[in-house]
Amino acid sequence: MTIEQRITVCAEEIERALHDYLKLSDHDLERIAEAQAYSLLGGGKRIRPFLVLTFCEVLGGKKEKAIPLACALEMIHTYSLIHDDLPCMDDDTYRRGKLTNHMVFGEATAVLAGDALLTKAFETVSSAEVLSDRERVEAVLILARAAGDRGMIGGQVMDMGAQGNNMLSLSYLEKMHSLKTGALIKAAAALGCLAAEQTAADIVASAELYAEKIGLAFQVIDDILDEIGDKETLGKSIGKDHDANKLTFLRFYNVEQANEYATMLTRQAQKAIEGFDEEKILFRLADYLLNRKK
Amino acid sequence: MTIEQRITVCAEEIERALHDYLKLSDHDLERIAEAQAYSLLGGGKRIRPFLVLTFCEVLGGKKEKAIPLACALEMIHTYSLIHDDLPCMDDDTYRRGKLTNHMVFGEATAVLAGDALLTKAFETVSSAEVLSDRERVEAVLILARAAGDRGMIGGQVMDMGAQGNNMLSLSYLEKMHSLKTGALIKAAAALGCLAAEQTAADIVASAELYAEKIGLAFQVIDDILDEIGDKETLGKSIGKDHDANKLTFLRFYNVEQANEYATMLTRQAQKAIEGFDEEKILFRLADYLLNRKK
Repeated sequence: MTIEQRITVCAEEIERALHDYLKLSDHDLERIAEAQAYSLLGGGKRIRPFLVLTFCEVLGGKKEKAIPLACALEMIHTYSLIHDDLPCMDDDTYRRGKLTNHMVFGEATAVLAGDALLTKAFETVSSAEVLSDRERVEAVLILARAAGDRGMIGGQVMDMGAQGNNMLSLSYLEKMHSLKTGALIKAAAALGCLAAEQTAADIVASAELYAEKIGLAFQVIDDILDEIGDKETLGKSIGKDHDANKLTFLRFYNVEQANEYATMLTRQAQKAIEGFDEEKILFRLADYLLNRKK
Repeated sequence: MTIEQRITVCAEEIERALHDYLKLSDHDLERIAEAQAYSLLGGGKRIRPFLVLTFCEVLGGKKEKAIPLACALEMIHTYSLIHDDLPCMDDDTYRRGKLTNHMVFGEATAVLAGDALLTKAFETVSSAEVLSDRERVEAVLILARAAGDRGMIGGQVMDMGAQGNNMLSLSYLEKMHSLKTGALIKAAAALGCLAAEQTAADIVASAELYAEKIGLAFQVIDDILDEIGDKETLGKSIGKDHDANKLTFLRFYNVEQANEYATMLTRQAQKAIEGFDEEKILFRLADYLLNRKK
């Protein structure tokens, strides 16, 4: 299977599992269920769940244990997108070519749909009977730390703090990304190890290092695509970050240098996991993310 | 000790514990820490934590086990207040006589502070070393279910759906309250039983019944106070619900009937726990809440 095929197969499986987690049969609560389903279902490459399932697979684990963890992670990712898009945050009208949640359901319901998905992530993990109590506790802790104010939320705060500030350093930018998006990607790797019952510290550290490096490379490529990408391919406006005077890697590197940096990060990621990535699935994923055009 | 003294002592203890949970020493993340502390610390009677600690105590449990659960519950309660106050929700300027979170820190930070507190609640429980893995899993599940779209968030959705609708029934109103505020109060009772390692189904059911009844009585009294209470004592405007054409108990009962109903609920609550409330702490709490003037 090509890496694209693997990603597609995994995304379909996650889609079905997420659909099952959203079932709710209460007429009075239909609207909040719809708002969650609107953003959670039918979209995206599901890269974070793919990482959970792939790490579990390459480390010899059972997929059934990875599925609830992958779904919980995707719920948290989706909640963060809904809240990020709100008028008081990034004020976005479209996401992946669809109207954002608050444009369809209104701001109040969008806030609550995000809150509900974050909460449901923890319900999903703590009720996953395929996992032992110890595994559930560890998974809740991994997710809460990655998503909290020392993780993803902290990164969002740093992003907001960066707007209009021209004096910030490259290390501020890298810390911001390592929190805002890196923390959840690293959590994906950690959850994959957990699902595979892999507790050897060096293996977990290698998995997390891989995740950190591809996460950062992803952001560098994002900044390049925003500057020079094809509007039609991307499905969003080009130069928006530039126009908004956002802090991006292109304040420190030109496009060629940024590409070199992303390539270097990708090679570092690939090196980190070469000891157990026998079929080179993770290796190819890193290349795939590096070479993406959207 | 009088019930007021007990509540005060407990609130002080919870305040200290919450303060410790909020410690965060990262300059880049100061603002989100401040925003959380602003709403979480220095306020309120801490009735939910009081219930956790008191149920734990009357059932012979150790307080150390109840504290992290009580703190997690209070974090969730506080997050819900921050989000409820947002301009897109109730658009409140004051809460307990203080400016609301978004009035001080701005809407974006208020959304994130709420998100961070919800996330921190689950981190607090899952990292509580005084609890066994099984207890942590159960506590996460109790909290997630109580706070999620089949609990508190569902109640908020029903509340929003009720605005301007004159055709709704008393049973809609009671279901709304049982979700919006009742679910967390019931969780307080369940967490208190959990902390006391009390798993007998009849005891837990009695504790939850008590919580449901006092929770509903609390709402009835709230509606009465909003109609006839003293503005100075309450620290908020009077008749706001009435003016906003909100769905309240006074659409179905006059003030005298509503008072009788609240008294009946209080007596039912007191009866539910008479088997193990030897010092009548829970009994007195129910009376205290019934007779409050604010």
